[in-house]
Amino acid sequence: MSDPRKRSRRAFLRSAAAMSGGALAIGSPRVFAAGENLPPNVPGWSKTVGAPILAHPYGEPSSFEHNVKRRESPGLTRTAYSSVAFTPLQNLFGIITPSGLHFERHHAGVPDIDPHQHRLMIHGLVKAPRIFTMDDLLRYPSVSRIHFIECGANTGMEWGNVAVPTVQYTHGMLGCSEWTGVLLSTILDDLGVDAKARYLLAEGADGASLTRTVPMSMAMDDVMVVYGQNGEMLRPEQGYPLRLLVPGVQGVSSVKWLRRLEVGDAPWNTREESLHYVDLMPGGVHRQYTWIQEAKSVITSPSGGQVLLDRGYHAITGLAWSGRGKVHRVDVSTDGGRNWRTARLQAPVQAKALTRFTLDWEWNGGPALLQSRAEDDTGFVQPTIRQLRAVRGTRSIYHNNAIQTWRVDASGAVANVQVL
Amino acid sequence: MSDPRKRSRRAFLRSAAAMSGGALAIGSPRVFAAGENLPPNVPGWSKTVGAPILAHPYGEPSSFEHNVKRRESPGLTRTAYSSVAFTPLQNLFGIITPSGLHFERHHAGVPDIDPHQHRLMIHGLVKAPRIFTMDDLLRYPSVSRIHFIECGANTGMEWGNVAVPTVQYTHGMLGCSEWTGVLLSTILDDLGVDAKARYLLAEGADGASLTRTVPMSMAMDDVMVVYGQNGEMLRPEQGYPLRLLVPGVQGVSSVKWLRRLEVGDAPWNTREESLHYVDLMPGGVHRQYTWIQEAKSVITSPSGGQVLLDRGYHAITGLAWSGRGKVHRVDVSTDGGRNWRTARLQAPVQAKALTRFTLDWEWNGGPALLQSRAEDDTGFVQPTIRQLRAVRGTRSIYHNNAIQTWRVDASGAVANVQVL
Repeated sequence: MSDPRKRSRRAFLRSAAAMSGGALAIGSPRVFAAGENLPPNVPGWSKTVGAPILAHPYGEPSSFEHNVKRRESPGLTRTAYSSVAFTPLQNLFGIITPSGLHFERHHAGVPDIDPHQHRLMIHGLVKAPRIFTMDDLLRYPSVSRIHFIECGANTGMEWGNVAVPTVQYTHGMLGCSEWTGVLLSTILDDLGVDAKARYLLAEGADGASLTRTVPMSMAMDDVMVVYGQNGEMLRPEQGYPLRLLVPGVQGVSSVKWLRRLEVGDAPWNTREESLHYVDLMPGGVHRQYTWIQEAKSVITSPSGGQVLLDRGYHAITGLAWSGRGKVHRVDVSTDGGRNWRTARLQAPVQAKALTRFTLDWEWNGGPALLQSRAEDDTGFVQPTIRQLRAVRGTRSIYHNNAIQTWRVDASGAVANVQVL
Repeated sequence: MSDPRKRSRRAFLRSAAAMSGGALAIGSPRVFAAGENLPPNVPGWSKTVGAPILAHPYGEPSSFEHNVKRRESPGLTRTAYSSVAFTPLQNLFGIITPSGLHFERHHAGVPDIDPHQHRLMIHGLVKAPRIFTMDDLLRYPSVSRIHFIECGANTGMEWGNVAVPTVQYTHGMLGCSEWTGVLLSTILDDLGVDAKARYLLAEGADGASLTRTVPMSMAMDDVMVVYGQNGEMLRPEQGYPLRLLVPGVQGVSSVKWLRRLEVGDAPWNTREESLHYVDLMPGGVHRQYTWIQEAKSVITSPSGGQVLLDRGYHAITGLAWSGRGKVHRVDVSTDGGRNWRTARLQAPVQAKALTRFTLDWEWNGGPALLQSRAEDDTGFVQPTIRQLRAVRGTRSIYHNNAIQTWRVDASGAVANVQVL
C-alpha cells in the first residue's frame, strides 16, 4: 500500500527514534526473566482449558474492564429518574460507541416497552393519518447510517469555569452509532404531506411524554425513524423499540420511545422547548430552536485524570464532529494555541459522524497545553472559549463547542484548564 | 439531498403502491379502537417513571430481545471447549456485528487473561527481538478499521447437502467490527526485519496454543495487532486483551489471545495447518494455505425459518464481502437465477468489510427462489454450488462461497434449498 499518511507516520517515528538516540521511544527492550509470566514462560491460562462455548450467549466485557462504564456527575441532577450518565470517552477507540456505554439522558426514567404493544401514530397535516405497529415499520425499506448524537448541554459545565476533571464529564454526552431505520421522508411520502406542513411534533412514550418540534425541511431530508443501533435492536436507554434520529441536531430532538408524530404549520413551543434547551444570550435575550451542533472536537488521550508515565512518543488522539456535514480538518496545538499541526483523520470521514484524529507527539517532559480545533466542510472553525463568550456571554448552558485545553505538567499529570 | 438511490426507491414504492391499487402495500391503515394500547390511548409505561439512571452502568439489550443470541449447531462439535457458536445474522441490521453477538470459535475454551500479566514476544528474523506489555503496545500509533472476520469453515455444512435451517447456521461464522490496534508493519519496522524473512508464526496464549503461518507480504501490508473492537477493549471470546487480525483471510489466521510472533523464512506446517483448514480436492489432492476468503454474499432477510405474512412489498436484504477488496456489485434473483436485478449497496463500501445490500421486491404470493451473487472489484463473481463442485469436488469443508438459495413457498414459509 502506498498510503501517504502511513509513510509520514513512519517518517515521524524514524525521526522520533533518531531524536531519542535509538529505537522508537516507547519504553525499553526487555529481557527474559525467570518467574515472569513472559513467553517462553507459560502463564496459568495457557495450561488449562478456558470457559466453554456459550458461557455467554450474549457476550460481555472482560471482568478486568469493570472500570470502563457510564458514570453520573455527582450533584448534577436532583433525581435518578431525570438525570444523565456520561460515556467514558477516555477509554474508547475508533468512532463507534459501544451501545452499552452510550450516554443516557432521561426525563422520567427508562420505560420497559413491549414492542408488540408499541405503536407510532402519524397525524395532523397528512392525507392518510395512520397508526403503525413495529411490524409495519420493519416492512418499510430501511437504511443504516453512522451518525453522532450529542446532548445540547454537552460541555455545559465549562461555561462557568467549572473545570470538571475528565473528558467523560466534559464531553461524555456524546456517542456515535450505526443507526438503522426508515427515512421519515419514505413514510411521509407514503402518507402524503399537506402543502401547508412546516413543522413536526415528536412525542415520546415515556412518563415525561417528552415533545420536540422538528422543521419539515429536516424531516424530509435525513431524519430517520430508528429501531436499530450498532447492528441490533435499540437498547432500552436509547429508546427501545423506536426513536427519532435528527442527525446533527442536539440530542433531545431525537425523541426516544417515539409514539407520535404530528405534522403542523408552526412550532409548538412545548415546555421542554421554552423553559429548557434555550440559549441565554447577553442582555436578557434568549435564542430558542438553536438546533444544530456546530463543529467541535476534543482530545480524548491524553486527557484530564490521565498521567504520562514516560517521555518520548505519545499519540495525541481524539474526536471531531459537525452537525452541518463532514469534518474537513483538525489542527492540534501542544502549546496552548500558539502553534498548530494538522492531525491525521481516520477514513472514511462521514457526514454528521464522529471522526477520529491522531497526531504524533514527542513529549519532552516539560509542561504542555494540549488543544484541538476542528474545521468542517462549510469552513466553520471551532472557536476559543473567549470568542464564544464574546458573542454568547456567560449565562449559557447549551451549545458550548469551544476548544478544550488539557494541561500536562512536568510530572506527566493531565488536568482540565481554561485558557482565556 | 439528491440521492439517486433514494429517488429510485421512491419511484419503486410509488409503482408498488400503484400495483396494489392504493397506498404502499404494507398492511392497511388502522383506526383508533377503544382499549388498545394505541395513541391517543395511553399504555402503562407512559403513566409511571421507568428505571433510574445507571440501572445498567454497562447497558444490556431489552429483555424482549432474549431470543437474539449466539447459538451452537447441535452435534457439530464433540466438546464445548472446542466448538463454535454462530452469529444470528437474521436478526441484525447494517454492517456492524454487536460484539456480544459476534461468533465464537475456540480450540481450548476462552482463557481469562489478566492484561497486566499478558505479554507479546516478537522474535526470530528481527534485529531487536522484544517482549511487549499491553502498555507498550498501547503507546504505538493506532489505527481503527472496519473489517469482516469469516471462519474458513463457514457454510461448510452446505458442501454435503446438509441444508441447515437458518442463515445463523449457514453463514453465521461471520462478523464485522471496527477493530483498533497497531499495524504490524509499524512494530516490525521498529524492530527491524531481516532480509531473509518470508513468513510469520502467530501463537495464542490459550490452552491450545493455536499457531498459524502468515506470509510477510500480508504482515507488512494491512495485518494488525488488535486490542479494540467496536470502540472498547476486545471481548474475551474475541481474544482479550490482544489478537492478530489478518484482513480478508480465514478467521483462524487472526490468532486470538496473541502471545508470540516469530519471523522466519518458511511456512511452519503446524498441526492446525496440516491436519485441519486444508481444502480436500478431487483426486486425493489437498490445498494448504488457501488463505483468502473469496467474494461471497447471502440474503439475511427473508431467510430460512422466516415467514412472509403478507403479499406486497418486502425488502430483500443481506450481506456481501470479499477478502480481496471491495464489493463492486450484488445482483439478486427471485427465480432461482434466471433473472437478476442489481441491489443497492449501503455507503460507504469498505475493503474487506461487510457490505449491506437491499433490493425492493413485490411478493405476488407465489413460490420464489431467492439468491444473491456478489462481484468484487477484482472482477471475481461468486460461483454457483455446481460451478464450485466442478473444480473442488464434494469432500471439502472449507471455503464454500457458493450462491445461497432460499425457497419461499406459497404459504410464505422460507427454507434452505440447493439449486443444482
